[in-house]
Amino acid sequence: MNGAQAVVQTLAGCGVTTCFANPGTSEMHFVAALDAVPQLRGVLCLFEGVATGAADGYGRMTDRPAAALLHLGPGLANGVANLHNARRARTPLLAIVGDHATYHKRFDAPLESDIDALAWTVSGWVRRSARSADAPADAADAVAAAQSPPGQVATLILPADVTWTDGGEPAAAVPPRRPALVPDEVIHQVADVLHGGEPATLLLGGTALRRPALEAASRIAEGTGSRLLAETFAARHERGAGIPAIDRLAYFVELAAGQLAGTRQLILAGASAPVSFFAYPGKPSTPVPADCQVHVLAQAGDDVAGALESLADLVAPSAVPSPQPAGRPDLPDGDGNLTAEAAAAVIGALLPDGAVVCDEANTSGLWLPAATAGAPPHDWLSLTGGAIGQGLPLATGAAIASPDRPVLALEADGSAMYTASALWTHAREQLDITTVIFSNRSYAILNMELQRTGAATTGNAARDLLALSRPEIDFTALAAGMGVPASRAATAAEFTTQLRHSLAEPGPHLIEAALAPLR
Amino acid sequence: MNGAQAVVQTLAGCGVTTCFANPGTSEMHFVAALDAVPQLRGVLCLFEGVATGAADGYGRMTDRPAAALLHLGPGLANGVANLHNARRARTPLLAIVGDHATYHKRFDAPLESDIDALAWTVSGWVRRSARSADAPADAADAVAAAQSPPGQVATLILPADVTWTDGGEPAAAVPPRRPALVPDEVIHQVADVLHGGEPATLLLGGTALRRPALEAASRIAEGTGSRLLAETFAARHERGAGIPAIDRLAYFVELAAGQLAGTRQLILAGASAPVSFFAYPGKPSTPVPADCQVHVLAQAGDDVAGALESLADLVAPSAVPSPQPAGRPDLPDGDGNLTAEAAAAVIGALLPDGAVVCDEANTSGLWLPAATAGAPPHDWLSLTGGAIGQGLPLATGAAIASPDRPVLALEADGSAMYTASALWTHAREQLDITTVIFSNRSYAILNMELQRTGAATTGNAARDLLALSRPEIDFTALAAGMGVPASRAATAAEFTTQLRHSLAEPGPHLIEAALAPLR
Repeated sequence: MNGAQAVVQTLAGCGVTTCFANPGTSEMHFVAALDAVPQLRGVLCLFEGVATGAADGYGRMTDRPAAALLHLGPGLANGVANLHNARRARTPLLAIVGDHATYHKRFDAPLESDIDALAWTVSGWVRRSARSADAPADAADAVAAAQSPPGQVATLILPADVTWTDGGEPAAAVPPRRPALVPDEVIHQVADVLHGGEPATLLLGGTALRRPALEAASRIAEGTGSRLLAETFAARHERGAGIPAIDRLAYFVELAAGQLAGTRQLILAGASAPVSFFAYPGKPSTPVPADCQVHVLAQAGDDVAGALESLADLVAPSAVPSPQPAGRPDLPDGDGNLTAEAAAAVIGALLPDGAVVCDEANTSGLWLPAATAGAPPHDWLSLTGGAIGQGLPLATGAAIASPDRPVLALEADGSAMYTASALWTHAREQLDITTVIFSNRSYAILNMELQRTGAATTGNAARDLLALSRPEIDFTALAAGMGVPASRAATAAEFTTQLRHSLAEPGPHLIEAALAPLR
Repeated sequence: MNGAQAVVQTLAGCGVTTCFANPGTSEMHFVAALDAVPQLRGVLCLFEGVATGAADGYGRMTDRPAAALLHLGPGLANGVANLHNARRARTPLLAIVGDHATYHKRFDAPLESDIDALAWTVSGWVRRSARSADAPADAADAVAAAQSPPGQVATLILPADVTWTDGGEPAAAVPPRRPALVPDEVIHQVADVLHGGEPATLLLGGTALRRPALEAASRIAEGTGSRLLAETFAARHERGAGIPAIDRLAYFVELAAGQLAGTRQLILAGASAPVSFFAYPGKPSTPVPADCQVHVLAQAGDDVAGALESLADLVAPSAVPSPQPAGRPDLPDGDGNLTAEAAAAVIGALLPDGAVVCDEANTSGLWLPAATAGAPPHDWLSLTGGAIGQGLPLATGAAIASPDRPVLALEADGSAMYTASALWTHAREQLDITTVIFSNRSYAILNMELQRTGAATTGNAARDLLALSRPEIDFTALAAGMGVPASRAATAAEFTTQLRHSLAEPGPHLIEAALAPLR
């Protein structure tokens, strides 16, 4: 068989079941090979950033890599922003990039570019297959690399002649590394810190935000009086009624500093040390108090849950987790204009059991965590790397990974426009995704940042570059144009009716939440 | 003044008048600085690929760089595909990438990535400003680098603290290099080749496809019996009635080989040696006959027109250029289904004098060159680097560069979906752009390539990954949702009426040419 056929069979044998694809000529043999391997499902995306974002969503929900099939350097480049988010999320993800035939590269054809350099900016593992006989083993290595804890982007570059030349045989799956066990010594050191009596905070990230780890962390907090905080942008946070609740570290560094004020011992479990998202004149780069010591209980690639459980057994043997009580906000009444706060209340009131929430609501999302805290258990997927345009693709992949769960994509209008063609894939695959566009007709975050950076001026040229109001974007028209039923809500009552309907009816829907201007 | 203010004033002083922007927090001081410098106009784009493609279109029409303002690594990454096209077009283009503050980078904040590595994949010049006092001179150097013949992408990385720190003073413009004069010796050598009597072809590219060079080349062909061909994908080709006509080298290598069959002497003027766009099993990488000698009259950065004129004076002193006669196709009659061939005839019949055509029609564009050959003089801008998603952004920049000329964006449906949000900028700036979407509901080129690469199979999974028919995309809805008046044409008569109306009425329009399926 040819290299492509052997690679596709190898991937299926390694448990890769989904390939989000935006292929071109150099990927035609790979595409053709899918015909013979129904275990590997191709999902067409109209833009590479949709394919990579979908693979990110899939990987977050399954802890296994999906493939994203990309076309040479420019195709990879279009996918880099969401690969960047996947890198920050530590998602297992396999990027497969077709390239010119090996002998053709020296001719510098129009699509020739430095794929390897591009790939290394977002990948923890990059390999270029040299022969059809090697490609299957390369593919098996790539899957193992992607899955190696804590998960990473692995990029396999497949020259066209490697895919079309005979001589490939399927390779066996390569077992990924297992998470490293945290040494007892480290756990005892952290136990000593917690017994020391100084104000302590555990900052949880990565797999520490899954239920078993959260329950162990909750026992630690109950037993020692230490505080719990979650990293600001979690890849996947299990939350809701019955699961220990945990506040997120704030986005703005001065607010995060307020949350950490008084903490003398900061213990990291699966999270990196906190840092300001951006630098600002006269503001610190980190919210960690100067007199606070930072300890690492477990790094992202470690057995974080196991470390938290061992620590809990040591410092809080008799403590029990403190679950979040069930509770939903009242539905806002009145037929006044819809606000982001009212929309959050509606979402909290209606969020279905087992929902997967893909949150790129940005400024409009401020009220969401509180409004949904006591809703039935759900997963919350955040914008991990700050590269906007993630939400609609992420929902695509999450829905394919979790076909029995409702997916809610909460999107800002500015961010939605980066990868709006994901809606077409929602329609094509009839995914059970309800997209809410928080339409405030502005890059609202930048209006804040213009003030916060001290750059604000009195002129109009700058403000005009942050406005999405001229013309206003009709998201219902965009959605309908791509086959997604859509409606617009201008009042809380309308939003309630439309969200209830969208959640009840299978398949994709879009609601444009036309927000009243902020006062 | 701060670094941003000094940079913006420097850019204005260097003749940079347009900044296509998709800014973020790290660019806020640059954005604010625009308030005080009305000579530098900010044009908001909703996606970085629109900003970079627009800067490409602007640079092709003016031979001066526009700036594209991008937000850190992910923002640059989103712009890379169209920067790749600009690199292949040799367009003068200034990419300005904001970065974290210098002191903040070590904290590895979520948006941190290797901007420099990304930039080098598409730039001929990259610099990272270290201090506000240096940034203005860096900006002046960047403009000069972008303009240095034949034109290139110059990327200036501006850390946030460099923009907000005082100590900047505007820098003087730096004169760009001038095109190199081709030595008389080379011109005489090529003259000897032409006098040698063997079948010769001149392959013209870059600035050799502007009118003065075309007239010199036409004299050479008339005087020596040599043939003229144009590179397949020209950055800007001046053509139409009164200008010497020149066939393009075909896209498919076997067709190009047919055009070059019998040529024993190939002379390059501003063009690279021809190469197959992709490699195919059993097909050559180049269409140049094995027994053909290749000579370089002038490279892209040389004074190509001057070299052609000197050569013409030498080998064809009394010859005169052979202008293309005026002539338009008849308007197709009948109310049958619209075909790509009929649409091309309508375009040829109605193309306005002085039009700028941005051609990303791909397979549907096959009939366009012949149908428009005798239309009034116009510029033809092609997809130079093969990174699709270029046409709508390119038209944006071309329209801003040439406000008195009508712009016609000819788009394939698959390609249009990469950067469709350019339509919003068309509406916002009320640009005189008529967009025609050739909607065949397929990645038609890939259906051909599936055959040509020998990858064709009998299964459905592969074919399904090349189909845009499930669901069909309603481009009139997409356009209306972004503020562009739109209509759909299913017959030649409808297309004629709608194109005539769109060309007559100022401002943006979109026509979805709903093509009948190919038989």
